[in-house]
Amino acid sequence: MSNPTAAMLVIGDEILSGRTRDANMHHLARELTRVGIDLAEVRVVHDDAAAIVAAVRALSEAFDTVFTSGGIGPTHDDITAEAVARAFDTPIGIRGDARAILAAHYEARGQDLNEARLRMARIPEGATLIDNPISAAPGFTLGNVHVMAGVPSIFEAMLASVLPTLTGGAPVLSQSYEVRRGEGDIAAPLADLAARYPELSIGSYPFIREGCHGAQIVIRGQDGARLDAAMAELAGMFPA
Amino acid sequence: MSNPTAAMLVIGDEILSGRTRDANMHHLARELTRVGIDLAEVRVVHDDAAAIVAAVRALSEAFDTVFTSGGIGPTHDDITAEAVARAFDTPIGIRGDARAILAAHYEARGQDLNEARLRMARIPEGATLIDNPISAAPGFTLGNVHVMAGVPSIFEAMLASVLPTLTGGAPVLSQSYEVRRGEGDIAAPLADLAARYPELSIGSYPFIREGCHGAQIVIRGQDGARLDAAMAELAGMFPA
Repeated sequence: MSNPTAAMLVIGDEILSGRTRDANMHHLARELTRVGIDLAEVRVVHDDAAAIVAAVRALSEAFDTVFTSGGIGPTHDDITAEAVARAFDTPIGIRGDARAILAAHYEARGQDLNEARLRMARIPEGATLIDNPISAAPGFTLGNVHVMAGVPSIFEAMLASVLPTLTGGAPVLSQSYEVRRGEGDIAAPLADLAARYPELSIGSYPFIREGCHGAQIVIRGQDGARLDAAMAELAGMFPA
Repeated sequence: MSNPTAAMLVIGDEILSGRTRDANMHHLARELTRVGIDLAEVRVVHDDAAAIVAAVRALSEAFDTVFTSGGIGPTHDDITAEAVARAFDTPIGIRGDARAILAAHYEARGQDLNEARLRMARIPEGATLIDNPISAAPGFTLGNVHVMAGVPSIFEAMLASVLPTLTGGAPVLSQSYEVRRGEGDIAAPLADLAARYPELSIGSYPFIREGCHGAQIVIRGQDGARLDAAMAELAGMFPA
């Protein structure tokens, strides 16, 4: 498949400690699949500047687009914006457009735009703001990296505004078929099918249900007719 | 913190496509925190040999221990064992001890140890087997890399047998405190607290509930008395 590629960088001690179960990765994976972008790698790192800088550099060089999640709030452990700026050797400071958004938001609520909140107006030079319809503090796009919030509702809203700006390839279609036999019984015919449809991706995902082994066979590809043909062969091999 | 470090490598197109939501990362994160090992990085890559080899090499050099999840079944897309062997420049082939385990398992069930199932006896030279009490096919440990199954019940069983063999540091204790105010109001006193307790990790995890902003403040560290002192200060700053 020659679809555009993407990577995700999740920044969060709370994920790595097991306190929180990540939700943004799963949401991003589904959304990118829907628009035909291949999510090729995900990394999760600590709230640690060196780790974030290294990962942003590696992923932004290797993939067409990078999404980050987390670490852009007002507290001392929110260091993503600085780290992304450093990864691109770009200056960062409080920017007038971001400050104006925050000032209007807090003024309307009778709240003070204090020093901590002002940190959320720190945006790298040349970055484009990403709208935050939920709590105002913007994300930003610098180079091919989209820096977004970790709170799932805000991450999802930011993604919804970024996605239409990306050029997706043809959507990847998928069909699945459940086989109620152990993978060992189906591996050989499945490998044969995969060899005859090299343009499709055929995956086998085993499960154990009520003590019985089975596998969900998922076929993915961009050519619907070929997908249908492979699925028909598969169903013929393993009648329900 | 000078606890041992660990990384995880999740191998799975099904995670990256959004078809499946990963469960093993969350389970591993909780278990490692419990025994005092710092899960420092997670990567998710495609069922792609080059991607697996590169990630195994990078993670096994950077961290004390690496856990992999997925890609060790009998089907054509299960390439983890070969890729890990290649990452360590180690020969791989069908090994007698693994073959004997599989032969006994399938014989007891009147099933054929066919060519596909035999692939699960492919174990790198010098690796130690990891017991699979659920479906027999073993994982293995090569160098500092523990290669385990992707099916959650099997991953969890394998982890349970590997964990006692690792030397954990002191367990990391954590306490959390909910503040019903926006992060912007609490950021400055929180940064001050963090500066006075440099041996503790203080994280702020914002949420929106019933339209109101709040934050869960999580303090982690290995010294229970210092943790208690910091928590008492925090509660004093933001009475419930």
